[in-house]
Amino acid sequence: MLIGRNCRFFGRVGSYLVKPLACLFISSSTMAKSKFEYVRNFETDDTCLRNCYIVVRLDGRNFHKFAEQHNFTKPNDNRALGLMTRSACSVMEELEDIIIAYGQSDEFSFVFKRTSNWFKRRASKFMTHVASQFSSSYVFYWKEFFGEQPLLYPPGFDGRVVLYPSNRNLRDYLSWRQADCHINNLYNTVFWTLVQRGGLTPAQAQERLKGTFAADKNEILFSEFDINYNNESLLHRKGTALIWEKQDETVTKRMKLPNEEEKDVQVTRSRKKVQAYHCDIIGDQFWEEHPDILEDDNC
Amino acid sequence: MLIGRNCRFFGRVGSYLVKPLACLFISSSTMAKSKFEYVRNFETDDTCLRNCYIVVRLDGRNFHKFAEQHNFTKPNDNRALGLMTRSACSVMEELEDIIIAYGQSDEFSFVFKRTSNWFKRRASKFMTHVASQFSSSYVFYWKEFFGEQPLLYPPGFDGRVVLYPSNRNLRDYLSWRQADCHINNLYNTVFWTLVQRGGLTPAQAQERLKGTFAADKNEILFSEFDINYNNESLLHRKGTALIWEKQDETVTKRMKLPNEEEKDVQVTRSRKKVQAYHCDIIGDQFWEEHPDILEDDNC
Amino acid sequence: MLIGRNCRFFGRVGSYLVKPLACLFISSSTMAKSKFEYVRNFETDDTCLRNCYIVVRLDGRNFHKFAEQHNFTKPNDNRALGLMTRSACSVMEELEDIIIAYGQSDEFSFVFKRTSNWFKRRASKFMTHVASQFSSSYVFYWKEFFGEQPLLYPPGFDGRVVLYPSNRNLRDYLSWRQADCHINNLYNTVFWTLVQRGGLTPAQAQERLKGTFAADKNEILFSEFDINYNNESLLHRKGTALIWEKQDETVTKRMKLPNEEEKDVQVTRSRKKVQAYHCDIIGDQFWEEHPDILEDDNC
Amino acid sequence: MLIGRNCRFFGRVGSYLVKPLACLFISSSTMAKSKFEYVRNFETDDTCLRNCYIVVRLDGRNFHKFAEQHNFTKPNDNRALGLMTRSACSVMEELEDIIIAYGQSDEFSFVFKRTSNWFKRRASKFMTHVASQFSSSYVFYWKEFFGEQPLLYPPGFDGRVVLYPSNRNLRDYLSWRQADCHINNLYNTVFWTLVQRGGLTPAQAQERLKGTFAADKNEILFSEFDINYNNESLLHRKGTALIWEKQDETVTKRMKLPNEEEKDVQVTRSRKKVQAYHCDIIGDQFWEEHPDILEDDNC
Repeated sequence: MLIGRNCRFFGRVGSYLVKPLACLFISSSTMAKSKFEYVRNFETDDTCLRNCYIVVRLDGRNFHKFAEQHNFTKPNDNRALGLMTRSACSVMEELEDIIIAYGQSDEFSFVFKRTSNWFKRRASKFMTHVASQFSSSYVFYWKEFFGEQPLLYPPGFDGRVVLYPSNRNLRDYLSWRQADCHINNLYNTVFWTLVQRGGLTPAQAQERLKGTFAADKNEILFSEFDINYNNESLLHRKGTALIWEKQDETVTKRMKLPNEEEKDVQVTRSRKKVQAYHCDIIGDQFWEEHPDILEDDNC
Repeated sequence: MLIGRNCRFFGRVGSYLVKPLACLFISSSTMAKSKFEYVRNFETDDTCLRNCYIVVRLDGRNFHKFAEQHNFTKPNDNRALGLMTRSACSVMEELEDIIIAYGQSDEFSFVFKRTSNWFKRRASKFMTHVASQFSSSYVFYWKEFFGEQPLLYPPGFDGRVVLYPSNRNLRDYLSWRQADCHINNLYNTVFWTLVQRGGLTPAQAQERLKGTFAADKNEILFSEFDINYNNESLLHRKGTALIWEKQDETVTKRMKLPNEEEKDVQVTRSRKKVQAYHCDIIGDQFWEEHPDILEDDNC
Repeated sequence: MLIGRNCRFFGRVGSYLVKPLACLFISSSTMAKSKFEYVRNFETDDTCLRNCYIVVRLDGRNFHKFAEQHNFTKPNDNRALGLMTRSACSVMEELEDIIIAYGQSDEFSFVFKRTSNWFKRRASKFMTHVASQFSSSYVFYWKEFFGEQPLLYPPGFDGRVVLYPSNRNLRDYLSWRQADCHINNLYNTVFWTLVQRGGLTPAQAQERLKGTFAADKNEILFSEFDINYNNESLLHRKGTALIWEKQDETVTKRMKLPNEEEKDVQVTRSRKKVQAYHCDIIGDQFWEEHPDILEDDNC
Repeated sequence: MLIGRNCRFFGRVGSYLVKPLACLFISSSTMAKSKFEYVRNFETDDTCLRNCYIVVRLDGRNFHKFAEQHNFTKPNDNRALGLMTRSACSVMEELEDIIIAYGQSDEFSFVFKRTSNWFKRRASKFMTHVASQFSSSYVFYWKEFFGEQPLLYPPGFDGRVVLYPSNRNLRDYLSWRQADCHINNLYNTVFWTLVQRGGLTPAQAQERLKGTFAADKNEILFSEFDINYNNESLLHRKGTALIWEKQDETVTKRMKLPNEEEKDVQVTRSRKKVQAYHCDIIGDQFWEEHPDILEDDNC
């Protein structure tokens, strides 16, 4: 029915009415869409259980090699850490309902509030939005941190979603990541000190550290290199926690006075901004100082 | 305050070596990790059902606004389409087991082979890797397509995973997307022709097209603007299918001859490359010409 | 034809021992098993999220018809309710980690403790075990409640699993079911009173109750039939909650005295038994009186 | 608002209008229901992927002990196998869309057609309905197979759902179960022959069979006990496959003749019935003889 009409216009050859292939195709294509649309039913529902914190953790893909190729300093590259944090801020600002993010090394975790209903709590939406926004930001802000040093290729991050039903579980998750930060950073600090200042080869340094405990590593740093690990950078030892904080901003507004004159007035308004912390988040202090991050368990 | 050093300095009492609290803390941090590690058990298994095609579809987030802000030409911006395709190529080359990708407008679908065991078929790995690699590539290659026009902010793409058990289902999925491409492009072509050449406002153009069928739209284009829709660009009408193709490459190799002399020799070798097609993928022809894309159903 | 024997008897050709096809088949069957075992990988992991209450709710299948065919009294049949409760007790006693069950009409909900690790928390195990044990018990104990009235055919119950992350959520779930019990029982009580004592046809009774609120229904009962709904049976108004309670049992044990004589001694020991309650479980009183049912949220 | 009215009836004490607790409760209970109904949103969607066979497999719970307690004959008890098959028939007749079932020992698998839309393909509905109907049938039909021997307690079966995307996968699943039947039955046949006729203790029999292959077991049976395993019962060696078959039934109908007389007429009509097979279902023959069981892959 649809076709005939097209054919009047495209289909005439001499006085013959030809039903051209193109015409057939167009209408069949339109109709076809509904015929094909059944494939939508193969999508599965991946709604996250209600009243649970939704955590998305990203990890750099092949970042060992990426760090080598871009000459990251060892054991920590502050430009790279800064870029991770900048990208994480972008994620917090662009997406909704993230209450805290925590990052270290080439990983970052984002915690969505337990009552969030963003995208109907579909897990795929949460993790792909985070992975995508973080990755595009990483390339976008590269120059801010690495200046003229070029980014050699587009990096990749993978992500996953994990649900935590209670505040205790969520805090334990974040504690797990910060304990991991501590363990890795202590190891890397000693390892690279042994290599860079102690003159050991990487293989020798690895051998030296085999089976050592935290106390042993501290002792090596202190007795051999006069380094007190506890004086090392908090950024490296504690990683980075990002939270929302209200900040007062003073802005100038032009206001009309009763006598019709205008005048500039200083107005203070409150705005939420992402704030970075490099501190212990395992103990209670941080959470007591920021009581608004977590919602009550029994809701 | 915490560590090794403390032990030497604050930890000695008389001739006794005391393990001070501070030391305990450090090791408790190490030990704490295992105490917290139970949170790993909250991760759920999202393995994709075996012997099904795994499709990841990406969609641009707020791309209507993004297109406005970056002055995309209407109804199609070839720079933007080129950048989408370039990013999709990057995904195919970086990730494993993608047999075909299909894109149009601000979306791209990636099909992983049904027998893929990449990352143990974990859905989250597939979708976040695709979303991440695509997004970082989009920013990375921006300049190649938009030259000096700056990218104003890092864009976002969301993704989802859908499984298709049979070749018929998979082809119907791709047909669904290409039929969607056709319907949208026909509409947009007429709409913007009415606005750009017909002098209608967007509201008037929308009103004019309300309730029209494909045939009506073709007629408007032909009778009023002398445009035969079927002569419009295949890229716009059919979208872009990316597949792997073997290509012969001739390279020059230096070889040692029996008489110990060396000589440059032309060697032909076969390499797989991503190839773009702008053609119908709904009918059988494309699939008959590329019989290696799909695996047999009954495997 | 297939095996060992065949080889000795049918497998000889002249003096040669031939391994006939039949023999091959047997071993191929054994080997085949490993060849087929890949199908195991199609099973998906359905582990329930940790630290959440696991609720299994059963509903009778076509119980309207079942009640008709077995002459259940209206609006409530105490034999049928007793059989439901007896079957639910069987489920609690046979399966592990059920802390409370609540039933009304032809449904029963079973709550597993949030820290349960029964069958590794696999949802399918929980719901099929409950559905199976309940159903076999229903037939097994039929006679205890219906005496000589025969069960006409094996009844069916369907089940589902729902997770609740907090005590509040779990209590609200149980409140939801008890509120449902109240609403249905009030309706049914008025409906059948209008029919049985008021002489209305079912259609007339339905019409009469259309759009009425709880208060209206109470008024009908009171003013027309002198029934105070609040004096009606608690079993019908509140349903049945089953919990574990410690009970002291006095048993007689034969003990040896110092002088080698033996003597019967009364010993009191504590045993956990399933106890039924027909009371309000929406308010706090029930939970305050049984503080051991729920575990702390913040675990 | 609702309450006042009740109070008129139940609440008057002298001339005072008292708002009694009972009144409060009733209306609050009604309102409460909607307040609690949010808990419904914690249910997750467990829809089975389209175009895949849905298999539910049941396994007896603690059937080793159950068999002991009910004196099942070894290695096979035909009454118990008959009861399993009778219960499976009940499942096929009561539930919808089951195309084939296969059972052996204390397990039974039910295959739903790939295009089934029963209960919107919700996995929990499939597995709990099967587990429930099978279990209630097992108790219901016990007497038919065990006569006066009493059933000591209600037995339990657990179930699971597995999806198979292709005919090959489904047939391999069924082959896996039949190969398992063969391996177990051969083992059990030899084991119990060694015990019952060879006078070995169970421990000795187990020791004797350690490390033996199928051929070895056949040889023991033949050379020591003159048993040709291939002459053993097909029911035991092959298990039981249940399928639907059309059967012609001749029924007598009373018809009115043109001359107004009535007459009994024999009418043949076709009806689908469940038919049991004890034969090989690993090879092609069974499937070629019953081409209607499986649907085409490419649908």
